[in-house]
Amino acid sequence: MSAIEDVTTELARLPGIGRKTATRLTYFLLKQPRAALARLADAILALSTRVSACSACGNWSDTDPCPICGDPRRDASTVCVVEEASDIGAIERSGEYRGVYHVLGGHISPLDGVGPDDLRIDALQKRVANGGAIREVILATNASMEGEVTATYLRGVLEPLEVRVSRIALGLPVGGDLEYADGLTIARALAARRDMGT
Amino acid sequence: MSAIEDVTTELARLPGIGRKTATRLTYFLLKQPRAALARLADAILALSTRVSACSACGNWSDTDPCPICGDPRRDASTVCVVEEASDIGAIERSGEYRGVYHVLGGHISPLDGVGPDDLRIDALQKRVANGGAIREVILATNASMEGEVTATYLRGVLEPLEVRVSRIALGLPVGGDLEYADGLTIARALAARRDMGT
Repeated sequence: MSAIEDVTTELARLPGIGRKTATRLTYFLLKQPRAALARLADAILALSTRVSACSACGNWSDTDPCPICGDPRRDASTVCVVEEASDIGAIERSGEYRGVYHVLGGHISPLDGVGPDDLRIDALQKRVANGGAIREVILATNASMEGEVTATYLRGVLEPLEVRVSRIALGLPVGGDLEYADGLTIARALAARRDMGT
Repeated sequence: MSAIEDVTTELARLPGIGRKTATRLTYFLLKQPRAALARLADAILALSTRVSACSACGNWSDTDPCPICGDPRRDASTVCVVEEASDIGAIERSGEYRGVYHVLGGHISPLDGVGPDDLRIDALQKRVANGGAIREVILATNASMEGEVTATYLRGVLEPLEVRVSRIALGLPVGGDLEYADGLTIARALAARRDMGT
């Protein structure tokens, strides 16, 4: 196989990148100076050499503990449970959360053969049981069926361990139009309605 | 900068890949085994070490001459001029062309500071002038304004060199609906109309 086909094949393995896009990217790369190709290749390789999962929360990081777990200004008594490390970025961007995280590494999905043992649930239990420093666990798994199942399972697992367990609210997205919201979202938003102060 | 940000930044330099897609790709790569990352990185690096432009036609290739120029079954008396090496793939896929190619490396575009001297037009002139083995030059630059300007310029350059110069036809795309075609395409299709045999 030629070097050009090699790159196209490798790029086409990436999610959301088909054969056509991979070809376009390959021809773009062919026009780049050698230094730019080396920078990209080195950066990709560094993922396997420099990055590992934080031993505390499971977030990907160059350091262990990761910058969030290692930050003394973060509130270590609140743990937000997410499915994937990439979810942390989304919550951090909101600028509203000062606690720490716990990455599950997916969600419970019997159809895909993913059970509780395949996720970092044991590690979460140990973190919470360990000394009682954690006061609240916020379940921020996705609002999908699998995310709900996982949250329900986690609530059961955490119940015996005197800790507050909460679930992020489901409802209308900010700026969302009631007219275009799906029925399930409206049902959830109604069920979670709050009294308004005067 | 962290290794994760490094990769995201490098991937976001690729055309059509924004910051968000780059982040998604990075998290995908993080989950890949080391061997898969090495394969991708090596393939990218090989572009600068193994691939060069064919000295005859300018096509990117592992070999010089490229597989097309080096194929004795190709008709070397017909040269199809394209803007970019990536255009060759499109023409090859049609399965209708048995001649060879000449890659210009772009199109004339005064607004972008690209003049005739920046393209492989000299090399084309030399190929055609050299011994008279080339009988026809097919101008297959894009149907854009710049492609047309480039084709017109090339016709002027090639005119003194006793060679047939042709331009690929512009018209309705196969399966194209007249109702949805733009006016310019319809005008071109009308102007290039052919008598129908009985």
